Amino acid sequence: MKDHPTPTVTTGPLPASRKIHVAGERHDISVPMREIALTGGPPLTVYDSSGPYTDAAARIDISHGLPRWRGAWLRARGDVGETDPRPVAPADNGFAEGARLTPEFPTRHRPLRAAGGRAVTQLAYARAGIITPEMEFVAIRENEGRAAAHSRDGEPFGAAIPDLVTPEFVRQEIAAGRAIIPANVNHPELEPVIIGRNFKVKVNANIGNSAVTSSMEDEVEKMIWAIRWGADTVMDLSTGRNIHNIREWIIRNSPVPIGTVPMYQALEKVGGVAEDLTWEIFRDTLIEQAEQGVDYFTIHAGLRLHMIPMTAKRVTGIVSRGGSIIAKWCLHHHRESFLYEHFDEICDIARAYDVSFSLGDGLRPGSIADANDEAQFAELRTLGELTKIAWEKDCQVMIEGPGHVPMHKIKENVEEQLKHCHEAPFYTLGPLTTDIAPGYDHITSAIGAAMIGWFGTAMLCYVTPKEHLGLPDRDDVKTGVITYKLAAHAADLAKGHPGARARDDALSSARFEFRWQDQFNLGLDPDTAREMHDETLPAEAHKLAHFCSMCGPKFCSMKISHDIRAEAERQQGMESMAEKFRDGGDLYIPAPEAGE
Amino acid sequence: MKDHPTPTVTTGPLPASRKIHVAGERHDISVPMREIALTGGPPLTVYDSSGPYTDAAARIDISHGLPRWRGAWLRARGDVGETDPRPVAPADNGFAEGARLTPEFPTRHRPLRAAGGRAVTQLAYARAGIITPEMEFVAIRENEGRAAAHSRDGEPFGAAIPDLVTPEFVRQEIAAGRAIIPANVNHPELEPVIIGRNFKVKVNANIGNSAVTSSMEDEVEKMIWAIRWGADTVMDLSTGRNIHNIREWIIRNSPVPIGTVPMYQALEKVGGVAEDLTWEIFRDTLIEQAEQGVDYFTIHAGLRLHMIPMTAKRVTGIVSRGGSIIAKWCLHHHRESFLYEHFDEICDIARAYDVSFSLGDGLRPGSIADANDEAQFAELRTLGELTKIAWEKDCQVMIEGPGHVPMHKIKENVEEQLKHCHEAPFYTLGPLTTDIAPGYDHITSAIGAAMIGWFGTAMLCYVTPKEHLGLPDRDDVKTGVITYKLAAHAADLAKGHPGARARDDALSSARFEFRWQDQFNLGLDPDTAREMHDETLPAEAHKLAHFCSMCGPKFCSMKISHDIRAEAERQQGMESMAEKFRDGGDLYIPAPEAGE
Repeated sequence: MKDHPTPTVTTGPLPASRKIHVAGERHDISVPMREIALTGGPPLTVYDSSGPYTDAAARIDISHGLPRWRGAWLRARGDVGETDPRPVAPADNGFAEGARLTPEFPTRHRPLRAAGGRAVTQLAYARAGIITPEMEFVAIRENEGRAAAHSRDGEPFGAAIPDLVTPEFVRQEIAAGRAIIPANVNHPELEPVIIGRNFKVKVNANIGNSAVTSSMEDEVEKMIWAIRWGADTVMDLSTGRNIHNIREWIIRNSPVPIGTVPMYQALEKVGGVAEDLTWEIFRDTLIEQAEQGVDYFTIHAGLRLHMIPMTAKRVTGIVSRGGSIIAKWCLHHHRESFLYEHFDEICDIARAYDVSFSLGDGLRPGSIADANDEAQFAELRTLGELTKIAWEKDCQVMIEGPGHVPMHKIKENVEEQLKHCHEAPFYTLGPLTTDIAPGYDHITSAIGAAMIGWFGTAMLCYVTPKEHLGLPDRDDVKTGVITYKLAAHAADLAKGHPGARARDDALSSARFEFRWQDQFNLGLDPDTAREMHDETLPAEAHKLAHFCSMCGPKFCSMKISHDIRAEAERQQGMESMAEKFRDGGDLYIPAPEAGE
Repeated sequence: MKDHPTPTVTTGPLPASRKIHVAGERHDISVPMREIALTGGPPLTVYDSSGPYTDAAARIDISHGLPRWRGAWLRARGDVGETDPRPVAPADNGFAEGARLTPEFPTRHRPLRAAGGRAVTQLAYARAGIITPEMEFVAIRENEGRAAAHSRDGEPFGAAIPDLVTPEFVRQEIAAGRAIIPANVNHPELEPVIIGRNFKVKVNANIGNSAVTSSMEDEVEKMIWAIRWGADTVMDLSTGRNIHNIREWIIRNSPVPIGTVPMYQALEKVGGVAEDLTWEIFRDTLIEQAEQGVDYFTIHAGLRLHMIPMTAKRVTGIVSRGGSIIAKWCLHHHRESFLYEHFDEICDIARAYDVSFSLGDGLRPGSIADANDEAQFAELRTLGELTKIAWEKDCQVMIEGPGHVPMHKIKENVEEQLKHCHEAPFYTLGPLTTDIAPGYDHITSAIGAAMIGWFGTAMLCYVTPKEHLGLPDRDDVKTGVITYKLAAHAADLAKGHPGARARDDALSSARFEFRWQDQFNLGLDPDTAREMHDETLPAEAHKLAHFCSMCGPKFCSMKISHDIRAEAERQQGMESMAEKFRDGGDLYIPAPEAGE
């Protein structure tokens, strides 16, 4: 690192916000949340995935990484031990050398793994009746400081979200396979998060360099930037050189679960020639990444040889990168993939580090024309079979879903997934509801994401405006995250989540009372809201004005609404008027204008 | 105009596009469409609302206005005559003088109105069994050059969209009140458009200056800009000074129907004091605007005195500008509004010019908390009563709807509207599905708009990113229109519209075949898509590349899909493989590698 100055990353609280911590009752844990101060009324506490970067008291140095505070929980369980790390090979970084080699992360930590073949997964603990610190952490976190349910109504489609989440409820959900806490024992920097249908809908942001562009500094900043705006997990989809070293920097600085598609790195190791992949190379890559602390692996083991011809008549063939790679391998070697054949062994690795599975949908549709076809649902049923195998090994599982799906075919996806995958959490990419808007696919997909989240998807993988067009930059990452946060929140509202409406109501009250600053600060993106308001009414005084440039003072309906209420109060109180007028029927007879 | 240079506006075709015209069979009409040339395969013809501005052959001078080509149809009907125009009063322009007065449009046309009290509405003609040129025009337009249905499936929720729209079908739908063609006899520049549940979902864009900002030049350009990107109608919501003159400039240059809320101008005429409004001032304003050629009026006649107290406990009170104004009037005077009491006379005016009604939802919810409440649905039922009155007078009607509605309460809005308003077309603003994302309300509302369009809403009123924050500028207008076009298209797809998927399939095929230029040009916003691609791969050669910067060459799933298809063909043809593998079941036995 001598020649590399420590990169600076975005830090500091969001506007009017401070980090608060809620202590555990069972365990010595401290759950961070964000408190938004309001000019009118008590502060609002909201879920906070941003980690120490938004804590004014935190000292951030990404060359040190985040505090490894979860280490104490891991040691206390006494079921893991340090092992000699797998040596880093030149192939792990794509044979990058000299100035082209991303420097190693300065500190090497010895990896942990299960001692004596034990299952060290949250699923194993849950089944054994153990409430881990991770479980209590997420229980507190999901409640967002609430002591009771807020106003709730909704259509949950079979989801059963309690008014308040208890650690025991978390344990039961994990034991049933309906939720997961991706939490590799080698990721002690983690602030645990739960993914399941009976919890808040989560959002994943993809980052990662490609062979064509970007660097370690960019990717670490993208991760921090993505969680600042609310990403609950981050997938590092790097390809090209330096994959190993970039990933290490990301994980050591990430408070959120990191997911990967190990196939990408494996393919780099064989020079991009899919046919040259072997189980041994793949297996070695899994261990490499598990030792680094990757929290969940996308594994495309559900794509079987006999399904490939089902894609022959598709408009867009196979659009999953991992799926297309393994399909090519299968077809070339004319046999089932090593992912499918060695899935048992893959589970053994995952169980030793508690890497969760995200069973990949290699045959997801890449266009409206291909939605819900034979190939897609054939693979889904195999993912259900693999789920049972993973569960037998005490591994945590979620299931990936599409993709491109018109609105009328979205619900079937959730119903089929729940049925064939035994209620394992569903994790979908969008879906995009039309193909005709490149440049706006964050929106075509937010429509589908909100709906599929409502129907029961546990986590939504974001789509940025650059989808189909290029590698997203920092602005695209933010736009993608905010878009998906609002979609996830719309889903929570529609499901009747007991806490969701508190923020809507607080913001709408601020709007009605012309508390502009509160309106900005309660929004998902206070900076953009404030900038937009500033464009036409920049003066500070206008932040107290009882109108905006959209309608101007005379035409502000909210201002007039206040006048109406004042007038009604003056006349006799709206409540009693309501009683009086209720019998009014068609022909209202004006009351005598006494007293006017 | 001597001191004012003619403003320049945006003209010229969209990329790779040209204007084509389809001739009528019954009438001497010529229906414009847009043909998109492709580098691979035949061109695609799409609906085109952009008017002559995108016709390379058109000569545009906004001080002349568009050709008044519909005049011949009007004269041929022989049921309208020229009248002396209502004199323009200083109050019509808010007493603007000198340099602050927007210049008059250079040409004064004598207004037309019905001769001898006749109904000159499309509804009256439809009921009389007459297929007007307007009806044939929209029939041809809806078919987009198709000779048959494209691949269709969907869930129409009771909509009945034919494979091909015939003029007679249009007539029947209008006669039944299920569709309208807003077409004032004083708007001969119009290219007619049909709004109804059994036609393509339409999009309205709001423009208009406010007392705080903007000018005539800005507003004319915003109108032209909005229709360039696909707005089907435009509402001029101007307030402040110069309303009359700005509107004249807009209508004389608009090929799309123009809607207004006459209450806004009436309020300006009484200096912004709602209590001082009178029926006489309002009536005079209706005639003023009808003579100019406004195609539809938003009238908030459904808001009745006894409903006002129902808003007392709302989080955001009354959020409709027109609604709040009339509510204030009602409460002050303690009587039913002159809109309600004089609705008969309002119909008589509308019928003499064929101004359609957009019955306003003055009590729409302005927050998630207020959705689907007593006030909202009470007003909706009154709108249903007014619909019947308007229909008795042969007036065309659509019904406005919310607003802010969480996803699980959207469908009820359509069901209630269909039931209580007798299937008159529904025209909704969004709805926004959460309140927590100021700056992104085009997206919170696109989710709701796509869904409500699917359920049966005929036209979606756009929301821009500036909603709740300020007056939208040109960029916001474009973002709002594109966002709503994609939402409307997603709705068409889900309804099973017989033509909708053609564009998705064409674009997805272009994507799969690496025809980048076609992919951009088939999108709703070719410029943005191209710019985004250029950001990382600017070279022209990359527009032919079989990869993009998102995944790079080795990880392009589509490239690999092509390899897979080639490999499969080489081996034995995927189709026969499909047969062979279909029996594969769980245990696939590799075929002997003969020939390899």
